[in-house]
Amino acid sequence: MIPSRIIEKKREGGELGTEELKTIFGGFLDGEVPDYQMAALLMAIHYQGMGPGELNTLLDLMIHSGAVLDLSHLPGPRVDKHSTGGVGDKTSLILAPLAAELGLYVPMMSGRGLGHTAGTLDKLEAIPGFRTMLSLDEFRSVLEDVGVAMMGQTQEIAPLDRRLYALRDATATVPSIPLIAASILSKKLAEGIQGLILDVKCGSGSFLPESERTRELAVTMTTLANGRGVRTAALLTGMDAPLGRAVGNGLETREALECLAGKGPQDLADLSAALTGEMLFLGGLAETPGEGTRRARQALGEGRGISRMARLVERQGGDPRVVTDPSLIPSAPEQDVITADIAGFVKEVRPVPLGYGVVEMGGGRRRMSDEVDPRVGFLLAVRPGERVEKGDPLGEVHAANPDGLDRGRRVLREAVVLDSEAPPPPPPLIRERVPALG
Amino acid sequence: MIPSRIIEKKREGGELGTEELKTIFGGFLDGEVPDYQMAALLMAIHYQGMGPGELNTLLDLMIHSGAVLDLSHLPGPRVDKHSTGGVGDKTSLILAPLAAELGLYVPMMSGRGLGHTAGTLDKLEAIPGFRTMLSLDEFRSVLEDVGVAMMGQTQEIAPLDRRLYALRDATATVPSIPLIAASILSKKLAEGIQGLILDVKCGSGSFLPESERTRELAVTMTTLANGRGVRTAALLTGMDAPLGRAVGNGLETREALECLAGKGPQDLADLSAALTGEMLFLGGLAETPGEGTRRARQALGEGRGISRMARLVERQGGDPRVVTDPSLIPSAPEQDVITADIAGFVKEVRPVPLGYGVVEMGGGRRRMSDEVDPRVGFLLAVRPGERVEKGDPLGEVHAANPDGLDRGRRVLREAVVLDSEAPPPPPPLIRERVPALG
Repeated sequence: MIPSRIIEKKREGGELGTEELKTIFGGFLDGEVPDYQMAALLMAIHYQGMGPGELNTLLDLMIHSGAVLDLSHLPGPRVDKHSTGGVGDKTSLILAPLAAELGLYVPMMSGRGLGHTAGTLDKLEAIPGFRTMLSLDEFRSVLEDVGVAMMGQTQEIAPLDRRLYALRDATATVPSIPLIAASILSKKLAEGIQGLILDVKCGSGSFLPESERTRELAVTMTTLANGRGVRTAALLTGMDAPLGRAVGNGLETREALECLAGKGPQDLADLSAALTGEMLFLGGLAETPGEGTRRARQALGEGRGISRMARLVERQGGDPRVVTDPSLIPSAPEQDVITADIAGFVKEVRPVPLGYGVVEMGGGRRRMSDEVDPRVGFLLAVRPGERVEKGDPLGEVHAANPDGLDRGRRVLREAVVLDSEAPPPPPPLIRERVPALG
Repeated sequence: MIPSRIIEKKREGGELGTEELKTIFGGFLDGEVPDYQMAALLMAIHYQGMGPGELNTLLDLMIHSGAVLDLSHLPGPRVDKHSTGGVGDKTSLILAPLAAELGLYVPMMSGRGLGHTAGTLDKLEAIPGFRTMLSLDEFRSVLEDVGVAMMGQTQEIAPLDRRLYALRDATATVPSIPLIAASILSKKLAEGIQGLILDVKCGSGSFLPESERTRELAVTMTTLANGRGVRTAALLTGMDAPLGRAVGNGLETREALECLAGKGPQDLADLSAALTGEMLFLGGLAETPGEGTRRARQALGEGRGISRMARLVERQGGDPRVVTDPSLIPSAPEQDVITADIAGFVKEVRPVPLGYGVVEMGGGRRRMSDEVDPRVGFLLAVRPGERVEKGDPLGEVHAANPDGLDRGRRVLREAVVLDSEAPPPPPPLIRERVPALG
């Protein structure tokens, strides 16, 4: 089979067979099919999509390009969560220990930040000493002992996905629903899990701002994963403003730890409880998602995830005192409070400028090779719909140096939009469940 | 400017500005923009097209990426031909020496095999010793002495086109009207010609099977080239069956030489005469294309191109005895005659399977770096509409080894479609002229 003919077939909207997909994706992994042919195919897929059969085969190839964990010896259900990425989203740091405390095993492999959204690994690494690059043996051992382990994708897991992801980033072929679905599920299904909750972000701060495409992604992923026997649901959640009040790795980790102690902002606690509740339901430890959510919310309010988080941090090399004293996380040398120039209502707190602001201040990545400074970011004092008077604080800027502070001030002023009219109430944080509850 | 953002803009249907086009196409030529980013952009252009402004800028970048010949010292008009490519099309080898014999200068730079069609260079190289890679000085010198010179695009001529052409071949982004138009014209306009006839193929064996797109390509190219002062017309010609009877580089060269001697198949001789006639007209040596065609047909019948071809072959390092004795071209070790299983009418001789069959037998390219075997191919014994009895020959397979022979047998059986009903007469070979004659 000739790779250019396979590309041509997809270009014209044809459905690729198993052998064709193996030839081109397997060949790409082996170095037989060069990057430029794969780039052309990815762009054709962007326009033409993939049928269910094609997508299933691609997912198979991606999963089995590397190791698949066998965790069947664990005594409890293995469930994980994935988010499509938003600004200020630190729910993983909350729900993973909480779900473990409530009887689940959570083998969570996460990514790093790229573009305007941050990654769980970068947040964990704000904890002094915390190691996210574990061997699979270490990962298994932490998981057995603590009920939760958190690490980066190793070379062994879904290497085909890793290579495709890097290429998609460079070729403007990221926002393709089948490619996103296969990428996410390949990593998660290689974890050997039985249940999976997907947090699919909608709104201006998400990767797929159009809501129809968001739902299509959720339906594609839940159909695919359930078809493989992994109980999977998706929550479509709002990302028109940052989640919680902290944006920036170290600040987000602090806020997550405060939330685990029962002192987090309402939206962050609500979403963390809802996702944990879904995990309990999908893992068979709750009768309904609602029952799971009630139990998760109660446990969160009682600070029951804290001791589990301390054990996780200690086992992965971090300083466990951080968990009960988040102020031990290094803070930025330059800080300033930005105040309102005029009185009015908060019309918008725009997530994308804040996310890119963190990148510009050195706290994110333009390229995968960039180092991140965990100390920089924003602590918001206001949320959309709130009333402010002239001189009221809008938020704090945390920067590594005076230049960064200047930049951060401008970003924060641009991101918080004030208006004389009271805005309509924001839509609910959790917009829809896929599949809908019967 | 970030290349992935430029790709994204085109992906979404935006019109790229001069600076954006310079950044990405210039960067590609300099090695700053990798092949995989260009491949993704080419596929996006395939779907989104290019506006007239973008196309003109791209053509400028392509022409001026290299040298532009100044041949104004030559005493006769400089005219060339280009074909969009078909199966069995060896007219260049016939009309170039014939036009030179009739008073034109033909500075022909040609391409190599692309997808299911073969290239003039590969055909010329079937002649033992023939060198297609000349320096520009050698090319000028052959042209001055013989009136015709035939070579590949050198490093100096439109290097951007050469790199794009190779990448398009490997990434299934060949059939894009703006990319085809810019590619063809960049090479031809760098030759310093005054007239140009375009043979734009229509039908199942062409790169653009839909006739509306074929006409669009002809109009795009003739408008662009006439606007730059080069007298240019296009003939839309049929490519629903191979041209002539030979398919495969060496076999086609033999057939072309036979045709030059006045012993070619009718369709090949007719088209060669018509294209030569247009060249005489566009170069100002004939009052009308019809008058030019009559003179060309007569000269072809008298074998008047033969001596010019022999001088060309000799000057470019080839064995000139080949011209009068085509059997000196190396032939394949494995040959077989395929016969009809049933009696009937030849409904189709499908060019695309035959073209790809040659590729699969080693006579074409899967990748840019592949070597071609000039000996392999097919010699057809039948044409659409002809009556065959059971056991009559359908054609010969010429292969490098027994595996190739098996493959070639299957291809030939698949390509020649027999039917009990007599098919309707085929449409005329020359369908339309662009612009129409007044």
